[in-house]
Amino acid sequence: MKFQKPKGTSDFYPEEMAVRNKIFDSLRGTALKYNFREIESPAFENFELIAKKAGREIEKQMFMLEQKGDEKLALRAELTPSSARMFIDKQKGLTKPVKWFALSRMWRYERPQAGRLREFYQFNCELFGSKFPEADAEVISLAADCLKDIGLKEGDFIVKINNRKLLEGLLMDFIDKKNIDDVMRIIDKKEKITEKEFEKELKQIKTTSEKIKKIISILNSPLKDLRNKRLNKKAEEGLNELLSVFSLLNKKYGNIKAELSTARGLAYYTGTVFEIFDRNQKYRSIVGGGRYDDMIKMFKGEQTPATGFALGYATLTLLLKEKNLLPKISLGPDYYVAAVNDSVRADAAEIAAGLRKNNYSVEFDLMSRNLSNQMKYANSIKAKKVIIIGPDELKSGKVNVKDMDSGEEEMIKLKNI
Amino acid sequence: MKFQKPKGTSDFYPEEMAVRNKIFDSLRGTALKYNFREIESPAFENFELIAKKAGREIEKQMFMLEQKGDEKLALRAELTPSSARMFIDKQKGLTKPVKWFALSRMWRYERPQAGRLREFYQFNCELFGSKFPEADAEVISLAADCLKDIGLKEGDFIVKINNRKLLEGLLMDFIDKKNIDDVMRIIDKKEKITEKEFEKELKQIKTTSEKIKKIISILNSPLKDLRNKRLNKKAEEGLNELLSVFSLLNKKYGNIKAELSTARGLAYYTGTVFEIFDRNQKYRSIVGGGRYDDMIKMFKGEQTPATGFALGYATLTLLLKEKNLLPKISLGPDYYVAAVNDSVRADAAEIAAGLRKNNYSVEFDLMSRNLSNQMKYANSIKAKKVIIIGPDELKSGKVNVKDMDSGEEEMIKLKNI
Repeated sequence: MKFQKPKGTSDFYPEEMAVRNKIFDSLRGTALKYNFREIESPAFENFELIAKKAGREIEKQMFMLEQKGDEKLALRAELTPSSARMFIDKQKGLTKPVKWFALSRMWRYERPQAGRLREFYQFNCELFGSKFPEADAEVISLAADCLKDIGLKEGDFIVKINNRKLLEGLLMDFIDKKNIDDVMRIIDKKEKITEKEFEKELKQIKTTSEKIKKIISILNSPLKDLRNKRLNKKAEEGLNELLSVFSLLNKKYGNIKAELSTARGLAYYTGTVFEIFDRNQKYRSIVGGGRYDDMIKMFKGEQTPATGFALGYATLTLLLKEKNLLPKISLGPDYYVAAVNDSVRADAAEIAAGLRKNNYSVEFDLMSRNLSNQMKYANSIKAKKVIIIGPDELKSGKVNVKDMDSGEEEMIKLKNI
Repeated sequence: MKFQKPKGTSDFYPEEMAVRNKIFDSLRGTALKYNFREIESPAFENFELIAKKAGREIEKQMFMLEQKGDEKLALRAELTPSSARMFIDKQKGLTKPVKWFALSRMWRYERPQAGRLREFYQFNCELFGSKFPEADAEVISLAADCLKDIGLKEGDFIVKINNRKLLEGLLMDFIDKKNIDDVMRIIDKKEKITEKEFEKELKQIKTTSEKIKKIISILNSPLKDLRNKRLNKKAEEGLNELLSVFSLLNKKYGNIKAELSTARGLAYYTGTVFEIFDRNQKYRSIVGGGRYDDMIKMFKGEQTPATGFALGYATLTLLLKEKNLLPKISLGPDYYVAAVNDSVRADAAEIAAGLRKNNYSVEFDLMSRNLSNQMKYANSIKAKKVIIIGPDELKSGKVNVKDMDSGEEEMIKLKNI
């Protein structure tokens, strides 16, 4: 039996790799326009660091490394612990805000599903040092522009924003403090489950029918209704933040929606939360992020506000494929230099080397093939142009250059190539 | 105590990452000129695959993953097993020769040393399907051009080539077959140890003084002396291959040297072997490679000739640094758009967004700073130009653009930005 690739991983053959490179280049280009700067962290981290944010129970879902020395290591499953560690390491010397991005490979030990593999790629952005809504708008705007720069229209996706303080503030009027995180987690799942299941899960944590009704009514209430309501301090603060972020973005994009049901489950968000979905919500979220002002302190740095997001390569490509927007790839070399016989092989190689010096992508025969087989090969690798070298060509100093697409031929002086 | 990065790993902060990106882009560009195509394999593989080439005893030096399911996995420490697996998986459908390269992260569990970390980066090239010396010359030529394209002169490095058949053929006249691999391994170390240590190691495997003298004389003999000698079939074949490869390269490069002491220790090479060093051999080899015609069959594919190399990012950067050839990086954004007061913040943001739309890298205030602190920040991030937006500028439709390098200022119409 053949050797198999590990479960839940992908091989990138040249075509797939060229597509990924183009998509990564586009994401990188958008991040650079926003003056975010690229970083890279090790593939694995001390498990203590990972567990600090995700909890020790995460060990089940991590690729743990066999412990050989005194370090207990795990492959990273997200960037934030690593970028937080890097930020804290140089915290004093860095001018704020710090704007970092990374194009990273991640790993998690889970049952592989469509669009959710054990080895996967993410584009991550982190903005450290600003507590202002402008910083949230900056990262959300970057995320939206990443999708637009890659060819998606505003009508292809939707940006949902909310504020954790607002939702928590509204809930804490009638939900016990100790239950808030659980309720948030269930709200986060709402779109993926039926209304019945939603109510069932809330009942399981002992939420009364009356409270469930209240929750649903909150989730469905438009922002403008909230403005006229008497809110507690937390909800008021959250609403103001949400309105600020919304108004900063609303001018630029037609597909921003403030939606109270966007909870982003994770307990570490402290303010703005947002998700980007394909318009019909056929797929998992493409982007998820928000503000996590307590994170740096949790990792033993000085209190620093922070906001950021992760964009998943797998979901993004699903949507690009659906919209027929995957980058078009042509892998063929610019030239194939064919030799009519053995006497001119060295000359063909020399001409190929000369073309390569001028930055053309060039192939010539490495298989001792005769001319007809060389031409077949040139065709099969989709060479754009073919130059045939023979003793006559060398004598006259002129060669025939054939355009393989149009079929047109042209005589060109050898010294001009 | 702060969280530490794992031993033997590197963090890439923006400056280092920008340098790495430029070097990778250069390597990628050279590979594409040679019509090699980029691939990527998973970070880990089934240990069975890795052990097939490296032997089960390699487990000590590998980062093994804790086994959770039925797969025993390890982080890859080289590319060949993975690229061989990928090649074999599509072997039937691929047009030969197949020319692949990868820019990969690798891992090995070893004591970290200067230029030799536990997590490291390699540029790998593999050419499958051609048994001809032209294919060896192609990969060696690619390796040499990678170094030249990045700015190194031929005088900065030396390419040493040899042929395993030749060396083995010469040795087998007087060395027991079972000792040949060990002798090759010791020859490979020769440059790193003293003559005394060299002799001692040979004695340890029971080589007589007379035989040691013979070995040393062979290693020092110029190629032309061998041409006049009576050689056994294996040595003869190796010599012819070596002469072919040498003459294909010698025309193009002045720094190619055929040297019998280049053994590349590893038993799996079957013909051409080569290494590239900095001219003074201050560092480990930058490139190492050769022909491994039995590899694909060993991995359960159909017999396929193959040749390739690995280029180490760490050693390469040591040499580039010494020669002052590390890419120059300027991370500052093209523009910083400053707002004189709060009333024009939204306009500054809008102008920044407009500039970004035109693909400029642009920063504006996300910290509610006053003008003087905005200017300080613009300076500290090395913005190339600063635009100051105030109510007057908006009224007149003209803004002042200051070049931060030259100090020159220019009035530009807002609608032209």
